[in-house]
Amino acid sequence: MKAVYLDGPKQLVEREGSEPSPGPGEVLIRVNTVGICGSDIEYYLHGKIGSFVPVGPLVLGHELAGEVLSVGDVPDAVAAGIKPGTGGFGVKVGSRVAIDPSIPCRVCEYCRAGRHNLCTNLRFVGTAATIPHINGGFAEYVTVPVQNCFVVPEHLSWGEGTCLEPLAVAVHAVTRPGSVAGANVLVTGGGTIGQFVALAARALGASTVTVSDLQEFRRTFALEQGADYAVDPTQGEQMAETQAATGGFDIVFEASGAPAAVRANLDLAKRGGTIVQIGSIPSAVELPANLIMSKELRYIGSFRYSDIYPLTMSMLSSRRVDVRPLISATFPFQDTPQAFELAAERGNAIKVQVVHG
Amino acid sequence: MKAVYLDGPKQLVEREGSEPSPGPGEVLIRVNTVGICGSDIEYYLHGKIGSFVPVGPLVLGHELAGEVLSVGDVPDAVAAGIKPGTGGFGVKVGSRVAIDPSIPCRVCEYCRAGRHNLCTNLRFVGTAATIPHINGGFAEYVTVPVQNCFVVPEHLSWGEGTCLEPLAVAVHAVTRPGSVAGANVLVTGGGTIGQFVALAARALGASTVTVSDLQEFRRTFALEQGADYAVDPTQGEQMAETQAATGGFDIVFEASGAPAAVRANLDLAKRGGTIVQIGSIPSAVELPANLIMSKELRYIGSFRYSDIYPLTMSMLSSRRVDVRPLISATFPFQDTPQAFELAAERGNAIKVQVVHG
Amino acid sequence: MKAVYLDGPKQLVEREGSEPSPGPGEVLIRVNTVGICGSDIEYYLHGKIGSFVPVGPLVLGHELAGEVLSVGDVPDAVAAGIKPGTGGFGVKVGSRVAIDPSIPCRVCEYCRAGRHNLCTNLRFVGTAATIPHINGGFAEYVTVPVQNCFVVPEHLSWGEGTCLEPLAVAVHAVTRPGSVAGANVLVTGGGTIGQFVALAARALGASTVTVSDLQEFRRTFALEQGADYAVDPTQGEQMAETQAATGGFDIVFEASGAPAAVRANLDLAKRGGTIVQIGSIPSAVELPANLIMSKELRYIGSFRYSDIYPLTMSMLSSRRVDVRPLISATFPFQDTPQAFELAAERGNAIKVQVVHG
Amino acid sequence: MKAVYLDGPKQLVEREGSEPSPGPGEVLIRVNTVGICGSDIEYYLHGKIGSFVPVGPLVLGHELAGEVLSVGDVPDAVAAGIKPGTGGFGVKVGSRVAIDPSIPCRVCEYCRAGRHNLCTNLRFVGTAATIPHINGGFAEYVTVPVQNCFVVPEHLSWGEGTCLEPLAVAVHAVTRPGSVAGANVLVTGGGTIGQFVALAARALGASTVTVSDLQEFRRTFALEQGADYAVDPTQGEQMAETQAATGGFDIVFEASGAPAAVRANLDLAKRGGTIVQIGSIPSAVELPANLIMSKELRYIGSFRYSDIYPLTMSMLSSRRVDVRPLISATFPFQDTPQAFELAAERGNAIKVQVVHG
Repeated sequence: MKAVYLDGPKQLVEREGSEPSPGPGEVLIRVNTVGICGSDIEYYLHGKIGSFVPVGPLVLGHELAGEVLSVGDVPDAVAAGIKPGTGGFGVKVGSRVAIDPSIPCRVCEYCRAGRHNLCTNLRFVGTAATIPHINGGFAEYVTVPVQNCFVVPEHLSWGEGTCLEPLAVAVHAVTRPGSVAGANVLVTGGGTIGQFVALAARALGASTVTVSDLQEFRRTFALEQGADYAVDPTQGEQMAETQAATGGFDIVFEASGAPAAVRANLDLAKRGGTIVQIGSIPSAVELPANLIMSKELRYIGSFRYSDIYPLTMSMLSSRRVDVRPLISATFPFQDTPQAFELAAERGNAIKVQVVHG
Repeated sequence: MKAVYLDGPKQLVEREGSEPSPGPGEVLIRVNTVGICGSDIEYYLHGKIGSFVPVGPLVLGHELAGEVLSVGDVPDAVAAGIKPGTGGFGVKVGSRVAIDPSIPCRVCEYCRAGRHNLCTNLRFVGTAATIPHINGGFAEYVTVPVQNCFVVPEHLSWGEGTCLEPLAVAVHAVTRPGSVAGANVLVTGGGTIGQFVALAARALGASTVTVSDLQEFRRTFALEQGADYAVDPTQGEQMAETQAATGGFDIVFEASGAPAAVRANLDLAKRGGTIVQIGSIPSAVELPANLIMSKELRYIGSFRYSDIYPLTMSMLSSRRVDVRPLISATFPFQDTPQAFELAAERGNAIKVQVVHG
Repeated sequence: MKAVYLDGPKQLVEREGSEPSPGPGEVLIRVNTVGICGSDIEYYLHGKIGSFVPVGPLVLGHELAGEVLSVGDVPDAVAAGIKPGTGGFGVKVGSRVAIDPSIPCRVCEYCRAGRHNLCTNLRFVGTAATIPHINGGFAEYVTVPVQNCFVVPEHLSWGEGTCLEPLAVAVHAVTRPGSVAGANVLVTGGGTIGQFVALAARALGASTVTVSDLQEFRRTFALEQGADYAVDPTQGEQMAETQAATGGFDIVFEASGAPAAVRANLDLAKRGGTIVQIGSIPSAVELPANLIMSKELRYIGSFRYSDIYPLTMSMLSSRRVDVRPLISATFPFQDTPQAFELAAERGNAIKVQVVHG
Repeated sequence: MKAVYLDGPKQLVEREGSEPSPGPGEVLIRVNTVGICGSDIEYYLHGKIGSFVPVGPLVLGHELAGEVLSVGDVPDAVAAGIKPGTGGFGVKVGSRVAIDPSIPCRVCEYCRAGRHNLCTNLRFVGTAATIPHINGGFAEYVTVPVQNCFVVPEHLSWGEGTCLEPLAVAVHAVTRPGSVAGANVLVTGGGTIGQFVALAARALGASTVTVSDLQEFRRTFALEQGADYAVDPTQGEQMAETQAATGGFDIVFEASGAPAAVRANLDLAKRGGTIVQIGSIPSAVELPANLIMSKELRYIGSFRYSDIYPLTMSMLSSRRVDVRPLISATFPFQDTPQAFELAAERGNAIKVQVVHG
């Protein structure tokens, strides 16, 4: 099969790979569309991400949708657990599916507590975190467990289906505080995840949504998608006016990873408020941590997702979250490197996707 | 001032009353529109509601909006607590306001815990529960604390503003389970509150909304307002099909008060599911209570509301919940008895309102 | 091996059975002590429990402790998930262990959400709910997954270790409301589970604990074990005095299954309070369900347990819950039928156990 | 009356003051015992605390117990809200009472939500945060609202009663994560609050309690009071061994305010764990904040307390938390400056109290 391998920083090389074969309970998918995630860009630019360094050839791509070519024998216990809305429901040969790329061990203390994203033995499609690596969507075929497949309804495009994974990241984050119903929400960072978070917060009941970003393109985009306010964080007066207009931010979603944003959020969050850290912060940050105590803040992390796909697919499918405007550019498979270049520029595109021939 | 008094069952008599005068921290409102609540209908039909029997003349009406005529001196502590979104914000002479009719004591254990609806000394506009009674909206003027007033934005009609109170009942119910995000929701009873609940559940993230009601009018209405399914509860097969299609009901909102619905819900709720009792149940019900244990259900009550008005006004104002189609009929003040007659028929109207001249 | 089979109502017959052999990830245990649970008594008296009717020979007994004779190959994923405090930690040939008898599928929606007790494919040692049945502790040997074994520390007796399972039922119930810290707790029903619940509620922070039971023996026993009040539920004045003294019951644990208790609890629970149903209720009950709405009660079920064993073993091991006084009688294996007779009398014994030779 | 005034850094001067007179709903208390809090020490050493600078004469002391000399007329609404366990219950002339020194406005958004500690108009006995200052317990008399008084049972000493306030700080912190039942708890900082937290965490169900402190005196003291482990944080191996033995720390209570501890806690908390910040951190801290995201930590603040006194008094009164060993030294009133000197040394005393003649 054709696959694009990451051979080193900025080295994405298309060559023949060995086609995966589905084991028991797995399905073989012919990939139609694959999205480029911020972590894919990190691998592309640096050849690794943090401590995760590819061992041997790695095919990136964990945001993907495609057609089911075959379904391995599904164990009875797995089959018994498949219900409407859950992964695997209605999946058969010919189904159009989007995938959940995370494969938890199901037996560690985190899995037993329903927090699969913290699984100490997690396997993940298309990253170097899993050894041996599991091929991702920048290849013609992938295999995943049947429960990891969610049928993409006919009225959704392949591109929308492919947004299931990044939207799941956002939806998980938005559910981390318990509920956003009635909250004045600030999203710091209007990149891909920030824009998805803004939409998800609105769809789940936030009273006001404010997006802050240094780039005017992203602020304008957020307003077009329904944010109530968009603020340039370097303009203190703008921010102060927005705080006054809304009554202050009950919940802040930090989606930039920028140390300045992380620091400022402890001030920006209201007394008794919540900050959700989604963005990856590249280094230690000097923080006025005493505010966590004196304002009784909650500063909580959000990492990937855990069983949030049924809700996410419902939001996508009903278009209560309409992701179509977020798909900024689509490239053919052979132009994968160009797609990565555009995505790596950050700022002139929200989500970049690649379509197989 | 002109007022309609409840003099006994089915006896609503218009006569002159004494105009209330606002005390410190209170505002005087000239009522524009007043809605008829199910509890108003109970008073109308039976002259009382449960153990609450009017002592002396009672003016009903706790769903109301009107114009602020004067504002008494606001104590500093109260003024300091008024922020954007909270009650009292922006309230001045000439403001169009809708009211929260509940006046908690603020010092009992429930008030201290933020559960004002359980206040052991609660006063409430337009009911016999408060002695002496506080005049309600079927009179020309009412007075309430300034914090109980919420400014109705210009783009909303008086009728929409008047829906703030019944929508608050629904929103409180929908927040009782914690979060409805991703839930398959069943609403049993498609009367006024049931329809409001269906809309609120959708706006706060339910994945599917099903409404069950004996009357075709109400089922059709629910579907028109965006419910995914509407079911006749006497048709077991219909219900079974809906359960199969949705994967089962995670959360059931019981808004009918009908013993048959109350009983059936313990079966209809999924294992591990939640039932929220909103409807008033007229008598003891024979229940398969063992299911609460064996299915680990939560059967929880919802009574009025507690500080849910800021969120409710946000939903109303943004029209994320559009209540306009729910206002079925509007009568002039002098036809108040006819308005009650129509409302008491239940079933051919959702919400009936009365407009002062 | 020697085993006692349930051949029908009141027919417990000792005969030779086939020794189980441990599969991968399983351990073989030589049973030392086995306790008689209320559900065992149901099987004993009626030959079945509800819809669960034994298919072929059934060996009862899911409260058990014994010595590990062998350990099958443990899969890497399972081994990786074993940590201090979790099941399987420190388990090797010769270990003294108590078991968690529930074996969830780990893949259904309930397992994925961390609610293993609601697993739709649950297997359970020593009951007819699992087909084929898994031999229970009234046999010389049992096999269970290694993760289901918890090492019993040296300073605990075999009898105490055997109480791990029933204490887990109580601890799960006590954690269902969220937290009992500071609550005035009422336990209705001072049988085995009720007594365990009273102890667990105290150990987890309840401010006052009241036990109600018709039998004086159980009331006296509860007071001896540290309950603050013990009440005869037929004596209304006693109950009223206790309510006055405590300020009312925030949380009620219903551990009797008696319809009269179930009905009364809706009155006894404070406004805004919580009722946890633990006892099995034999039939439908006529309930004043409107109180759930008007008092905003939570009436929630508690069914077995879910990953509560680490906490339970900590409470047992530290003797923050001292179960020794609750072990009322111990019989040798050959007198198993007599042990069941005593247990079935209910009321003159709390927990009855059987020790293998 | 005699009072000790803070006239500047290290200037505590006894002189005559004007006796306060109780307003409606207030009681006049003759102070018996008053404790020295860490914040009192700050005022003593620096003449101020952060931005709170005394305006005119200030009498410190918010941990106090005394005898009720008179009770002003109690408004009906207040009287109606007083129940067993709540503040004010049983308070009459001659009662021995300990006080809650916080007087919230009851009308701001935080008060309405039950979070009185975040009240934007909070008044507080014996600090410069309230203007005009309310005299504290280093004076012969104080007045507070009747609801702020909790009867000290006869079997408790005055000193124990005086510990109600600092224990409330600890209990509030311990309830902030939701529940500590079953948690492996680490307390960083074995000063007064840290020791109280360790006791409260144990009493509310923590499975293991570890205290870390630089001083051997405090580590030994913690072990004597029942901590399972005590660790010198500069000894990495000790900490690693404790982590291995417990399985890792689910909840960390940071009670030192030391930047090094604050920083280390993000590493020490388990994946998915919770850190509660109680200690006041003197300056910005460089933190590996990315761990909050990648480990999905919750880093939450705890500030004073909110309606936690009923539970706290129950723990004190039942001696489920026995504070007697924590009262290290007691001075007569005229030696108040010496008492502050000892307390300011930190490390050779846990709690220092002063007794009026």
